[in-house]
Amino acid sequence: MRVLGVDPGLTRCGVGVVEGTAGRPLTMLGVGVVRTPSDAEIGDRLVAIEQGITDWLDEHRPELVAVERVFAQHNVRTVMGTAQASAVAVLCASRRGIPVALHTPSEVKAAVTGSGRADKAQVGAMVTRLLRLAAPPKPADAADALALAICHIWRAPALNRLRQAQSAARPSRLPASPPSSSVRKVTR
Amino acid sequence: MRVLGVDPGLTRCGVGVVEGTAGRPLTMLGVGVVRTPSDAEIGDRLVAIEQGITDWLDEHRPELVAVERVFAQHNVRTVMGTAQASAVAVLCASRRGIPVALHTPSEVKAAVTGSGRADKAQVGAMVTRLLRLAAPPKPADAADALALAICHIWRAPALNRLRQAQSAARPSRLPASPPSSSVRKVTR
Repeated sequence: MRVLGVDPGLTRCGVGVVEGTAGRPLTMLGVGVVRTPSDAEIGDRLVAIEQGITDWLDEHRPELVAVERVFAQHNVRTVMGTAQASAVAVLCASRRGIPVALHTPSEVKAAVTGSGRADKAQVGAMVTRLLRLAAPPKPADAADALALAICHIWRAPALNRLRQAQSAARPSRLPASPPSSSVRKVTR
Repeated sequence: MRVLGVDPGLTRCGVGVVEGTAGRPLTMLGVGVVRTPSDAEIGDRLVAIEQGITDWLDEHRPELVAVERVFAQHNVRTVMGTAQASAVAVLCASRRGIPVALHTPSEVKAAVTGSGRADKAQVGAMVTRLLRLAAPPKPADAADALALAICHIWRAPALNRLRQAQSAARPSRLPASPPSSSVRKVTR
């Protein structure tokens, strides 16, 4: 399974591609940051992020895009920009029929470090170890994007089982409602 | 001047096109709502909004798109969806090189009713009167989109003068930084 992780942001949007399956060693295929100047106009910034994400999709052809789930109760000053960058990433994937999964920051931290309250350094150290890198990816947004991709690969089997169990438990005339972080296939 | 107003939202995204200049009677060229089902996946919803906005741009070829400025301190539950829908509208316009202007809800209310704290009914009544319509546009999101377009047409001359004054007052080596609600031309 090849997953593009996206840590959304207007100034720095982290992107990282990881390939592998749960229970086997994982491989990093690419990591980087899509940057836009903070003094640029919002429309230009969103167009630049769209172009950047599109380039990553073209180059790595991921089967799924894992994006950090944004919450409004966090930093009010930056959350609007994060939501807008996240919308562009989700749009770019969905337009191509690539499924999108959302994971919360604490789900990602718990997946790679064992603790939902781990700090940035701990996440960076575990990403480095799990992907057998020479040094932690910089900046932290790039490491976070890889952590999102790892989180998805590891959670996917459990999420799929949960979704199947929910589908089986519901009357067949109702559409299955997957859990909040599950993968939902986009059909166009 | 032909302006497409967009009142962003995931469930109902109001759109309205107004043509005219400040100080002259205004003409409504179209009004509507781009809807997406609230139980659909976020990616599908953003793709549907992108398609809807694109259709309005194709049909009416506005010179400018006026979008409501979203604030994080408002309703926390809906603000994330509003920010995401807003990002898609801004992206669709900027991708085509159409300038985008952002106006706050109170700027829009003050422009069309004289009070920044007017209620929805008052805004609807003034939009109906100013555009010489037979009845207030329904739902309120559609009326709000028209109000945004009217607000922009009326504020544009003052915003342009302000921007020119700021440019003249600054050292020429610094780029002019327009005020928060001004029009910024997108160059690609």
